[in-house]
Amino acid sequence: MKKPDIRLYGLIDPDNSGGHDLLWLTEGIARGGVTMIQLRDKKSETADFIRLAKDIKAILNPLHVPLLINDRVDVAFAAGADGVHLGQNDLDPESARRILGRDAIIGLTVRDQAEADAAPLDIIDYVGLGGVFDTASKVNQAPPIGLEGLQSLSESLRARRPGLTICAIAGISIGNTPSVLDAGADGVAVISALSGVADPTGAARDFRAAIDTALTVRGAA
Amino acid sequence: MKKPDIRLYGLIDPDNSGGHDLLWLTEGIARGGVTMIQLRDKKSETADFIRLAKDIKAILNPLHVPLLINDRVDVAFAAGADGVHLGQNDLDPESARRILGRDAIIGLTVRDQAEADAAPLDIIDYVGLGGVFDTASKVNQAPPIGLEGLQSLSESLRARRPGLTICAIAGISIGNTPSVLDAGADGVAVISALSGVADPTGAARDFRAAIDTALTVRGAA
Repeated sequence: MKKPDIRLYGLIDPDNSGGHDLLWLTEGIARGGVTMIQLRDKKSETADFIRLAKDIKAILNPLHVPLLINDRVDVAFAAGADGVHLGQNDLDPESARRILGRDAIIGLTVRDQAEADAAPLDIIDYVGLGGVFDTASKVNQAPPIGLEGLQSLSESLRARRPGLTICAIAGISIGNTPSVLDAGADGVAVISALSGVADPTGAARDFRAAIDTALTVRGAA
Repeated sequence: MKKPDIRLYGLIDPDNSGGHDLLWLTEGIARGGVTMIQLRDKKSETADFIRLAKDIKAILNPLHVPLLINDRVDVAFAAGADGVHLGQNDLDPESARRILGRDAIIGLTVRDQAEADAAPLDIIDYVGLGGVFDTASKVNQAPPIGLEGLQSLSESLRARRPGLTICAIAGISIGNTPSVLDAGADGVAVISALSGVADPTGAARDFRAAIDTALTVRGAA
């Protein structure tokens, strides 16, 4: 069982880049302290998506930050990415594992108790849990689960698999990060809070400081 | 080297179904004599695409008609399809081969001499050559290659790989099928001419008769 470092999981999306160049944004948040990056691209042609993923991977390699691809397992394979993040409407985790192999990092979005119960926890490496709060960056059909939902679903998942890595998704800010980690998440996934600011590196640095402080407090408790 | 039977290669696309139910259309053209089917879906979510592919595969299995998936190698893998058709803006054929294995049928679109020269003919099983004529079903950026282009590109490809299976693409009708086969194609890929009619089974039957007659004449020449 891998333990991916998802303390600060930055999402890169051409549709939500805050007008920044994607490669500049990637390098900036990686230097600021993002521990993993996910590339989401719902519009590009496959070959363009692969090219972008390879360019981003080349930036991240020397910084030792893994790159995961949203949804597209074929793109992850062709680009040599470190893994995939799968939504409930994406490829099934077992097929993804067979394509990418055991070393790949595979994450799965879980939005409610039924999805938590159905999640193949022997195949995936982490769960993206949420949406925790309302968010502007993605249309969520379901109402947010809140801190209570985050806590109860985390406990339910870890009852089946102790130590499971859980990342909180949607509407995360520096302000609510301590309560999110206190509710059981190991880290937070962030998009607009990093891309939609003038200084993404500084924002990532501030996020990481808040996260590491909260985790230290939690660890000492 | 596989020799896929692409005499009459039917394309199924939710965006170009002539208002027919996709499963009804699939079964109809397969019973009419289509020798291979390609499923193209540029809009559905991945899981929906996989479900549709599995449903179509279940219809085609007892009829012994292979199913290829357009572009999405991950979908082809998860759905247990027989292969993929790759455009020039899709996954590279080598990655597709590594994901799908040696038994998969892999086809590649070739539109001009430069793409013919670059095509990895040791990896792919057939070439989709064209667009030969103008077509309403797909936006072609390049002008059609015509029968002359079909002939010269076929010769160029087969100089590198004798016996290469070549399928003519775009604007194919029963009327121009004999000249297309005479120019060097082993078969034709068809979408609107099968989906955009009231009786797809009858249209497929008529196409197959025209193709088989023309191939017999060519074989006897």
